[in-house]
Order: sequence, then C-alpha cells, then structure tokens
Amino acid sequence: MKISMHAMSHGVFRKGLAQLQHVLEKAVANAEARKFETSVLVGSRLAPDMLPFVRQVQLASDFAKNSMARLQGVDPPKFEDNETTMDDLFARVKKTIEYIDSVPAASLEGSETRDIVLKLRDRTIEFKGLAFLQNWALPNFFFHTVTAYNLLRHNGVDIGKRDFLGG
Amino acid sequence: MKISMHAMSHGVFRKGLAQLQHVLEKAVANAEARKFETSVLVGSRLAPDMLPFVRQVQLASDFAKNSMARLQGVDPPKFEDNETTMDDLFARVKKTIEYIDSVPAASLEGSETRDIVLKLRDRTIEFKGLAFLQNWALPNFFFHTVTAYNLLRHNGVDIGKRDFLGG
Repeated sequence: MKISMHAMSHGVFRKGLAQLQHVLEKAVANAEARKFETSVLVGSRLAPDMLPFVRQVQLASDFAKNSMARLQGVDPPKFEDNETTMDDLFARVKKTIEYIDSVPAASLEGSETRDIVLKLRDRTIEFKGLAFLQNWALPNFFFHTVTAYNLLRHNGVDIGKRDFLGG
Repeated sequence: MKISMHAMSHGVFRKGLAQLQHVLEKAVANAEARKFETSVLVGSRLAPDMLPFVRQVQLASDFAKNSMARLQGVDPPKFEDNETTMDDLFARVKKTIEYIDSVPAASLEGSETRDIVLKLRDRTIEFKGLAFLQNWALPNFFFHTVTAYNLLRHNGVDIGKRDFLGG
C-alpha cells in the first residue's frame, strides 16, 4: 500500500468510525450495567455552551462523508441529522462507513491539487485538496470523535485510549 | 506541494502544535481575567482516573516528535517531562516544533514501507510506516491535543473550535 489521498482520508476515517461504533457499544452496555437511560449520554455536554454528544457524532460522520465527497469533487450525500438514540447514532456511523467505502480509491487520484471551496455560515474558505485534508478534514474529524470519547469518559463509561485507537 | 509522508506527518503536527500554543495562551489570559491560578488548569482532569492536562500536552508533544523520529528510523529525542506550569508547557511545545522542523522532508522518503516496532509497557506493536501514521501517530496526536482543548473548554476558558483549527 502506497501513501495516497485515499489512504490518508478513507484509511483514517474508516478506522476512526469503526472505533466510534465500538465506544458507542461500550456506552450502551455501561448504561445498562449502571441502570441509567442512554439518553443522558446522548444529551451530555462538557460545557453548557458546547454541542451535545449527539451532535459530536453527527459531525464526526459529516466530516468523514463530506470530505470524501469534496476530495472527489462531488456533492456530499445529505443525512437528516434526525438521530435521537444511541441506536440511531450507531446506524448513522454505519451508513457513513458504507458511503466512504463506496468511494473508489481512483476517484481521489490527483485530489491533492483540487480546488475545494467551503461555504460556511459566516465565511468562505478555499483550499487545495492537500491542505484541506491536513488542516480541515482530519483535525475536524478527530475533534469530534475525541470529544465524543471524552464525553463518555467524563460520564464514567469504562473506556480507555485503546478503545479509541483500536487494535 | 505533493502528498508525502512528510506532508501528512509534519504538516499536520506543525499546525496542531501551533494551535496548542494558541490555546495555552488563551488559557493563561483567561485565568488572569477570572483571577485563578493556572495551576488549577495544569492539574485538571475530565475523570479522576484520567491523565491531567499537563500529561495531555506532554503526550501530544511526544507523539509529534517520536513519530517524526520513528518515520526516519532514528531514536526520538528524550524530553524530561518536568513541566509544572503553563509557561513550561508552552516552552515544551516550542521545543517540539523546533525538533519537527529540523527533520528534513527527504529523510521521510519511502517511510511508508519502513518497519516500525513499538515496545509499549505491556506489548510490542509492529507497523509499516503508512499504517503507523494512519492508525497510531495521527490518532494519538489528536487524542491528546483535543483532550487538552476539552479540558480547558470544560473549565470555562473562552475557546471555540476555530482556536483549535486555526486560520
């Protein structure tokens, strides 16, 4: 396997999403063992003005699927953001994996020099594909997966870094 | 700029460490404004059995410098882990940036197929360089930079994702 835009996007997201599924499963088992509703975790925050767990998972999904689409130069698939339970979130991550697995590696060839324009709420950002991957797609993806992990850890779910990293 | 092992390691760590310096500065300013000792932040944790802020920053530094060394096939520089203040931590990150900037891009050429053996406390892991970068270096680096950010955010420091990502 050679280094490529596909290896450094799909290869990183794929593992991160699989580990996110794993920590979601551990969170559900932990809630059962400690006899509390998983909805407490779904709505949990690290600060009152910070997005809750459900949004952290949705955003991790978004940065994976949207980045794979933008590197190809196609419109990202639109997911509804209607998840309310841990089961919904698990299904959302599964659907995200299915989408990123459907992207042919060849479709990202040369994407390091592709012009990518992001229209955000309050500004527009332009990147070449390589800088988009280095400074946007990867940091944003990990920002939300690690925050989701930290929310569970803060709430006493029995997970450690090895659950985040995987084998 | 073409995608390379150097671009996907140094290029990601460099930005992440600069933003870590930025959030350290914001934390110091926030502690001054709210009139509390920064040592409260340095020792803060998200769970009682989790490493404190000081270790999160040291480990972010370690994963950046050690990964750059291992991809070259040389021994990582050893830092003392004797930081106790925010100033110490800022200097630690600065020293880490100086080290990773000193690594010539050419020394990582072909490192995607290099055999890398990690001797951990309780096990040994072997990787090819590409998988080491995808599944070890990047996820570990972000695990600790995002956790450091989350610790400050949880403690009411006025930072947002844009401080983490940078411009």
